[in-house]
Amino acid sequence: MWSVILNMKKLIITGFSGFVSSHFLDYLHENNIQVAIYGISRGKPRFDLAKYKDKLEIFYYEMDLMNRHELCKLVESIKPDYVLHLAAFSSVAYSWKYPEESFTNNCNIFMNLINAVKQSAPECRILSVGSSEEYGDVKHEDLPIRENQQLRPVSPYAVARVSQEQLSRVYVDAFGMNIIMTRSFNHIGPRQDERFVIPSFIKRILEIKNEGKAEGVIDTGDLTIIRDFVDVRDVVDAYYRLLAYGKVGEVYNVCSGEGRALSEIIQTIAHEVGVEISTRVNHEYIRPNDNKEIVGTPYKIETELGWKRQWTFNETIRDMIAYQSEMLTI
Amino acid sequence: MWSVILNMKKLIITGFSGFVSSHFLDYLHENNIQVAIYGISRGKPRFDLAKYKDKLEIFYYEMDLMNRHELCKLVESIKPDYVLHLAAFSSVAYSWKYPEESFTNNCNIFMNLINAVKQSAPECRILSVGSSEEYGDVKHEDLPIRENQQLRPVSPYAVARVSQEQLSRVYVDAFGMNIIMTRSFNHIGPRQDERFVIPSFIKRILEIKNEGKAEGVIDTGDLTIIRDFVDVRDVVDAYYRLLAYGKVGEVYNVCSGEGRALSEIIQTIAHEVGVEISTRVNHEYIRPNDNKEIVGTPYKIETELGWKRQWTFNETIRDMIAYQSEMLTI
Repeated sequence: MWSVILNMKKLIITGFSGFVSSHFLDYLHENNIQVAIYGISRGKPRFDLAKYKDKLEIFYYEMDLMNRHELCKLVESIKPDYVLHLAAFSSVAYSWKYPEESFTNNCNIFMNLINAVKQSAPECRILSVGSSEEYGDVKHEDLPIRENQQLRPVSPYAVARVSQEQLSRVYVDAFGMNIIMTRSFNHIGPRQDERFVIPSFIKRILEIKNEGKAEGVIDTGDLTIIRDFVDVRDVVDAYYRLLAYGKVGEVYNVCSGEGRALSEIIQTIAHEVGVEISTRVNHEYIRPNDNKEIVGTPYKIETELGWKRQWTFNETIRDMIAYQSEMLTI
Repeated sequence: MWSVILNMKKLIITGFSGFVSSHFLDYLHENNIQVAIYGISRGKPRFDLAKYKDKLEIFYYEMDLMNRHELCKLVESIKPDYVLHLAAFSSVAYSWKYPEESFTNNCNIFMNLINAVKQSAPECRILSVGSSEEYGDVKHEDLPIRENQQLRPVSPYAVARVSQEQLSRVYVDAFGMNIIMTRSFNHIGPRQDERFVIPSFIKRILEIKNEGKAEGVIDTGDLTIIRDFVDVRDVVDAYYRLLAYGKVGEVYNVCSGEGRALSEIIQTIAHEVGVEISTRVNHEYIRPNDNKEIVGTPYKIETELGWKRQWTFNETIRDMIAYQSEMLTI
């Protein structure tokens, strides 16, 4: 059975304090997967680890993956069977402002990780989480994007992610390492940080509602941008399957297959919340060089690994609104 | 006239203490190009700067390009018109042993440089020197390689170089920076460090000769590897033309167009030196994952910039032997 393959194994999760990690823990917990978790992140998790205690053994290490020496020692002491590499500086906007930091905290941390694993746990399976941003400049006729699409990254963040993927291939081919790669499209869901685009829309629309208004205006960036949003709970199901069964050296889209313009999403949120929203473009939010449309096809992961998304877009939005409403009222 | 366009301009050369830089200075000197040179490197040049004094104004700065703050201050104070970015850790073999250092000293230093230039000299033209290693895994039917070939890097070094090039494109497209890129094939010539493959062959063959022997055996790596070797004096001519006239955002092969197996080159050297050489493969010299054949076409740089190589392969080898013989006898 697919769910038990990680039982009794040792799994390192980098980026442990993050949004995706918390959903991955939920997933393991709900599916009774008894894996020992070694969480690494720079900041302590803000979610409660106690709720997993009945089923999951969790060890936490506060560490910067840039600290190569510490990381090597830790991996040596754990000798993991699996690594789920979630750690990233995943904001494109940030990478335009701080390209060096973005690069270092995406590409260089990954290199430190794979070298540490190569040294002391060479058989370990690593899921290298990448980004749909790697595709970059894609022509409309190439949509939805398949994995064999040529990569034309258009931001410093995207270049760093392409490097991460290319390094993965080099380490698979040259050293026989067991690395599986993703190009993960925009994920959304409850508990996502409000700096990300959809939670930030929800927050501002809920604020308008909570002020007792029936309508309001929000400032936005370019709303004609079309992206493929996938529920984080579907994403973690994909990651589990890829860790367990993904083909080494292969890259998989993790996406919904549906494209939505940001303008449409704002109206979906407004409708759910029950207010009228109009928008105003703020040029400060416009990025130097953005891809208009990024929509993938999940065909490969569906056919190879039996993955299928469970949450519709509207369900996800409703759950996010419910979560953020609760946060606002606490 | 092509040669005067840099006259009275300010040119930063990174990797100033290196082999290519010394030939670039010779080139400027011989062609009476009166440009002010701001050389940056981590170690002092081992070549004599005094010989250029009659025509070239040269300032030297000992600095690590990883030191972002110092670099920004320096670029701010110079406000260069041109940058010839030669600094690199250009050994593929080194990158297999020390992938992180290779990455940092190729990709991250470049990012530091372009950010420094973006801040205080945004109109500056930058020549970003890359590598034929970026092509990586190329099918025989795709030879000789043109610039539109898909990049499939197969070493950590090559991945770092691809990142450098992709970052260049991002900065051209997003910020309108004036960056021209090369994919430079293996360059050889007098004064090349003996750790590189051809000088190391010459050194060992000259030693056999100097011991008074008529024949000898040398240990080698995989001699079936075919590469495109281009004389460094032709390379610096290409770099000058690219700095002056290359199209912004474009990448150019800098190559001879001729492929030669290492086995053939050893015999050429042996013949010139006048000894019989046989070879023995030492598996320590075999790299984890190497490209068998990398040969480019210089068509683009020839047609767009009127560049044409001046040195034949045999002339280059003779000059290298003459130079290294002199070194051995000093």
